[in-house]
Amino acid sequence: MSVLVVGSTALDSIKTPKAENPRLLGGSASHAAVAASFFAPVKMVGIVGKDFPKRYMDLYRKHKIELSGLQIAEGKTFHWSGEYETNMNNRRTLATELGVFETFSPNLPESHKNTPYILLANIAPSLQHHVLDQIKNPRFVVADTMDLWINIALSDLLKLIKRVDAFVLNDSEAKLLTNEDNILKALKKIHRLGPDYVIIKRGEHGSILSGPSGLFIAPAYPLQRVVDPTGAGDSFVGGLLGYLAAAKGSIEKNLRRAIIHGSATSSFCCEGFGLTQTTKITPVDIQNRVAQLEQMVKF
Amino acid sequence: MSVLVVGSTALDSIKTPKAENPRLLGGSASHAAVAASFFAPVKMVGIVGKDFPKRYMDLYRKHKIELSGLQIAEGKTFHWSGEYETNMNNRRTLATELGVFETFSPNLPESHKNTPYILLANIAPSLQHHVLDQIKNPRFVVADTMDLWINIALSDLLKLIKRVDAFVLNDSEAKLLTNEDNILKALKKIHRLGPDYVIIKRGEHGSILSGPSGLFIAPAYPLQRVVDPTGAGDSFVGGLLGYLAAAKGSIEKNLRRAIIHGSATSSFCCEGFGLTQTTKITPVDIQNRVAQLEQMVKF
Repeated sequence: MSVLVVGSTALDSIKTPKAENPRLLGGSASHAAVAASFFAPVKMVGIVGKDFPKRYMDLYRKHKIELSGLQIAEGKTFHWSGEYETNMNNRRTLATELGVFETFSPNLPESHKNTPYILLANIAPSLQHHVLDQIKNPRFVVADTMDLWINIALSDLLKLIKRVDAFVLNDSEAKLLTNEDNILKALKKIHRLGPDYVIIKRGEHGSILSGPSGLFIAPAYPLQRVVDPTGAGDSFVGGLLGYLAAAKGSIEKNLRRAIIHGSATSSFCCEGFGLTQTTKITPVDIQNRVAQLEQMVKF
Repeated sequence: MSVLVVGSTALDSIKTPKAENPRLLGGSASHAAVAASFFAPVKMVGIVGKDFPKRYMDLYRKHKIELSGLQIAEGKTFHWSGEYETNMNNRRTLATELGVFETFSPNLPESHKNTPYILLANIAPSLQHHVLDQIKNPRFVVADTMDLWINIALSDLLKLIKRVDAFVLNDSEAKLLTNEDNILKALKKIHRLGPDYVIIKRGEHGSILSGPSGLFIAPAYPLQRVVDPTGAGDSFVGGLLGYLAAAKGSIEKNLRRAIIHGSATSSFCCEGFGLTQTTKITPVDIQNRVAQLEQMVKF
């Protein structure tokens, strides 16, 4: 079955202690759609400006991402630039130029409205709502977010959390949202906001899933070299939902393996700037890391 | 088979944001010996002063810890006092009074010298060397350490690391020792110092074992409430070695399960001040958490 991915489509200029790369293909939807494409057919909804490089369109197409929902508007593509500190764990935004994103309204083509698996990648909660309003009978809806929306659009976000099956956020966002340092207490509070499944991303420490059958503690694939972690969270959730859309059986049965596949997929994202490494791999590379992770947690 | 535990035996005065508890039973040997005692017979080597409370002797005895190697000297028992910050991750030492520890020389009774499983709990590396010099044909030697010894006794510590089968330290200590932020690079550097097995403790994120058969990523047992994490690392390594000493088969075969048992044992340590919670539990309580951890990592 297919996955609908809605989120940002951007050009990222990224500086790390070792290198600087301007105008990479980025944005939550780009990372998530490419990650999901290793497992299932993907339709992507977003917006780019007339300046969007043709080579990035070709990259989407190489991954067989359906682009009829990608709007191409007069003006400039959303541009983000940021810088990472030495240990790659902290980053700061240098500039955000919204461009065509400022007036983005994610109106879905008719052909998209019956997609069973919906990924509301990181984007303003009001836009995530607008997408959900157009969807008919989805099988599974996942929403991701970021600290910005908890800070400036909390009311919209809380209404959104009620509407989704799974809500994904990282540990510092979970703390910000719930005012709880303890991860179990934070998980309980987020469940009370609505979703059956809550997934907390913990970067190099993996992730934790809380759902009807209890907790699942998932490892991250250990990397010798992190080149650029931008988009790793989007890649994680994209791989996760792509796997779920392709798997047979219940969500409950498949979600743990889906998380491991998301984890493996996102590990490649960290090994190159932007999407450079992720767009070089094949499903076999992901399977190899899943198999290694399986060995690494067995006891 | 039995375990020999050498380390500090202390009185700890601990302050957390919620409570303050003076003169608790503490020290690396106390925590490790009690933890190991749930699995195997334990001989403990340490030193206390004449002020050491009888009720703490009774606690050791309740856990069937063999005390002929525990010296009782004129003077005061080693006393440490420390304070934890709100999130319980950072602590600062308020006072350290060495007392009888200042002149401690861990001379082993004859009956201790053939113990097969040796735990050199956190203590000055020179004393860990002194113990190893007296041991005949050990089956498995584990050493723990702390940042202090990396800072003030590095040369002794490096010589010690060469002599042990497994070396245990936490993530910030691994970084301090190797000058590597990346955990895989740090592990490689520590292996080059000698030991076949390296275990890096990561607090609430569990631990990672590196050995001849690759990496093992172990979870921590998730806790709703951390009362006092003092001694959790000692408890982890004590439970680990106690399990190994009792298990049939090769070290290689048993080490992963040993780590999980250490993890489960140390979770109880965090749930009470000092050893108050650990000394209330039974082996069944540990087995229950091991079984839960098994469920939490399955996929």
